[in-house]
Amino acid sequence: MLIKEKVNQAVGILQEFDVDCWITFARESQINGDPTLAFLVSSDITWHSAFIITKDGRAHAIVGRYDVASVEETGAYDEVVGFVEGIRVPFQDYLKEINPPKIALNYSEGSEICDGLTHGMYLTMLRLLTEIGMTDRVISAERCVSAIRERKSPTELKSIREAIRHSEEIFDLVSGFIKPGVTEREIAEFMQVEVNRRELEFAWDAAQCPAVFTGPDTAEAHYGPSAKTVEKGHVLNMDFGVKVDGYCSDMQRTFYILDDGETQAPPDVQKGFDTIVKAVHDAFAAIRPGKQGHEIDRIAREVVTAAGYDEFPHGLGHQVGRFSHDGTALLGPPWEKYARKPFQALEENMVFTIEPRLTVQGRGICTIEEMVVVARDGAEFLSHPQREIILI
Amino acid sequence: MLIKEKVNQAVGILQEFDVDCWITFARESQINGDPTLAFLVSSDITWHSAFIITKDGRAHAIVGRYDVASVEETGAYDEVVGFVEGIRVPFQDYLKEINPPKIALNYSEGSEICDGLTHGMYLTMLRLLTEIGMTDRVISAERCVSAIRERKSPTELKSIREAIRHSEEIFDLVSGFIKPGVTEREIAEFMQVEVNRRELEFAWDAAQCPAVFTGPDTAEAHYGPSAKTVEKGHVLNMDFGVKVDGYCSDMQRTFYILDDGETQAPPDVQKGFDTIVKAVHDAFAAIRPGKQGHEIDRIAREVVTAAGYDEFPHGLGHQVGRFSHDGTALLGPPWEKYARKPFQALEENMVFTIEPRLTVQGRGICTIEEMVVVARDGAEFLSHPQREIILI
Repeated sequence: MLIKEKVNQAVGILQEFDVDCWITFARESQINGDPTLAFLVSSDITWHSAFIITKDGRAHAIVGRYDVASVEETGAYDEVVGFVEGIRVPFQDYLKEINPPKIALNYSEGSEICDGLTHGMYLTMLRLLTEIGMTDRVISAERCVSAIRERKSPTELKSIREAIRHSEEIFDLVSGFIKPGVTEREIAEFMQVEVNRRELEFAWDAAQCPAVFTGPDTAEAHYGPSAKTVEKGHVLNMDFGVKVDGYCSDMQRTFYILDDGETQAPPDVQKGFDTIVKAVHDAFAAIRPGKQGHEIDRIAREVVTAAGYDEFPHGLGHQVGRFSHDGTALLGPPWEKYARKPFQALEENMVFTIEPRLTVQGRGICTIEEMVVVARDGAEFLSHPQREIILI
Repeated sequence: MLIKEKVNQAVGILQEFDVDCWITFARESQINGDPTLAFLVSSDITWHSAFIITKDGRAHAIVGRYDVASVEETGAYDEVVGFVEGIRVPFQDYLKEINPPKIALNYSEGSEICDGLTHGMYLTMLRLLTEIGMTDRVISAERCVSAIRERKSPTELKSIREAIRHSEEIFDLVSGFIKPGVTEREIAEFMQVEVNRRELEFAWDAAQCPAVFTGPDTAEAHYGPSAKTVEKGHVLNMDFGVKVDGYCSDMQRTFYILDDGETQAPPDVQKGFDTIVKAVHDAFAAIRPGKQGHEIDRIAREVVTAAGYDEFPHGLGHQVGRFSHDGTALLGPPWEKYARKPFQALEENMVFTIEPRLTVQGRGICTIEEMVVVARDGAEFLSHPQREIILI
């Protein structure tokens, strides 16, 4: 269902960008899977496989003979050709038949999600095209692949909303479990048991999902929960997401462990938390189609630095989809590693996180990660934004 | 543990092949993971990351700041450098320091397992190297990466043996479940419940693991089990594997469903099955270090055709490791899609399947898939080879 939906969407996008022909070329997808394959087939492919979609609406697949049945079953292709010895003849025959002026391939320096073609497969493709005189027609499919991933269909948005609902429920449940004396690892295990009970998948590697950080001097983000114990006076933060029907949630929440005699967070913690909330909402209010991500990032970054904190050493927010980090356009600063991503225009139905962060010295990390969808005239929260620090 | 073991092994292999420096260059490994990363890190990496191993025994990693802690934890690197804005400066500084005459990168037309570098990342690497005058030092790391994957350590062989043991036990269990009237899907579900009960992973996509085919006119290999019902007189075959500590088994077994009054398989089925057994054992007997895979493939292929059957439309056997299809050297015919794989010399401690196949008209498919390890003077079975058709 999703595959027919996305293949149809792809034809419209090829027309919009005036790209004659788009080829996804892959082999042994268990080993080196082009991330675009998830929109083109519903199972692994084994040998050299070409999924060829044209601006005039044709969808043609050439795959090893044993993969024909499962590709046909998607119902998305006009024709599925199987081969035994090699792809060369059926591939060159079909390209000569359709004779496309431009041929878009899945490579990109600036966007990993559009960069599924391996260099060895690129060399093979170039050899196949050179033999039929089409070498100079090759272009990057980055714009097309980005649009296919980024413009979420109603089916895709529904799955993301459902993944967020589960995450929020699990954050609520764990709030009753956190207390002084439990370890980061015990908190993570509590949540993982709940994920398994709900028969959900983790949005990223389970060893770091959730990531849990309690108190000052924690490991940096992207690290598994440790044996460190929750103590009174700690700020505790978590990064957590699940997958529903292949689509992710990705959210962070901040907790404060009340010290003896406290009924609310002390002023230093409250100031840090309130700064993060303001950064989230000021950035949110500026999102609309046509804006560029670096403009949104700067708003949140300036809220944090204006309050006297160091700026966060990462982008404000990334897109979410089949991966927790998905899409090309990014709410990020113009740093080398982000290439042109912060300069791509925002579009309706892109799904972003907003996740500023700051350190409260001697306490821990305040960070919130919300999820939003770009709408016609602004943005909508997909998550229920955290406005109060969760008191334990 | 495995990572230190494999990084050390890599240094020896670089010395053996006289390769000065080997760089694995990847980003967002959840999205486009170079399959070699499993030997270099124990968790996902996020931004541009370079794992640089040299012939003189240095192991240096440059990764995004948030990934530093988990890479350091492997204990395999002399130094792990973290960056915030981009990899360019620390990468170029280190390359200038070690100044390697040859730089091997993970790309290969002929071997997908050595082809983890995407084309976009290749372009980025080339740009980084051009800026420091090292463009012309680039070579393919195919030989090194193949050797690292293919020469199984004792730890790796132990995991594979354990995965085989589980597979064989589950084949035994399902033999008591198969009977006329059950569907392919019910048989698969029975086995999957057992895999989950044992807390194992599937060796490939669970939708096709096991693959179950009963009777004549089944879907071809690489297709999920259907609602087709087992009937008396059917030949039934299955393809199944599990993972233990990241290492796979991959095995096939053939069953015959006795018809009324039968106490053994009828002559046409018995002849087909015995032909497969002979093909397996004749091929097995010919395996030794230094032989080439096409020589082994031809022996089994000729047993099948000499008995009057069509030749199987696939290679006789592939290597097994972290993926069910692993390694470069292949027991296969010299077909286009296999490139130079059938001409690579076999080496000690490579693990192969042997899996000939033939159709018994009107009955079904006879196929056995055994697993063997290449030894100093021959080969050893890792699986207990099937010598009798399993009668139901």
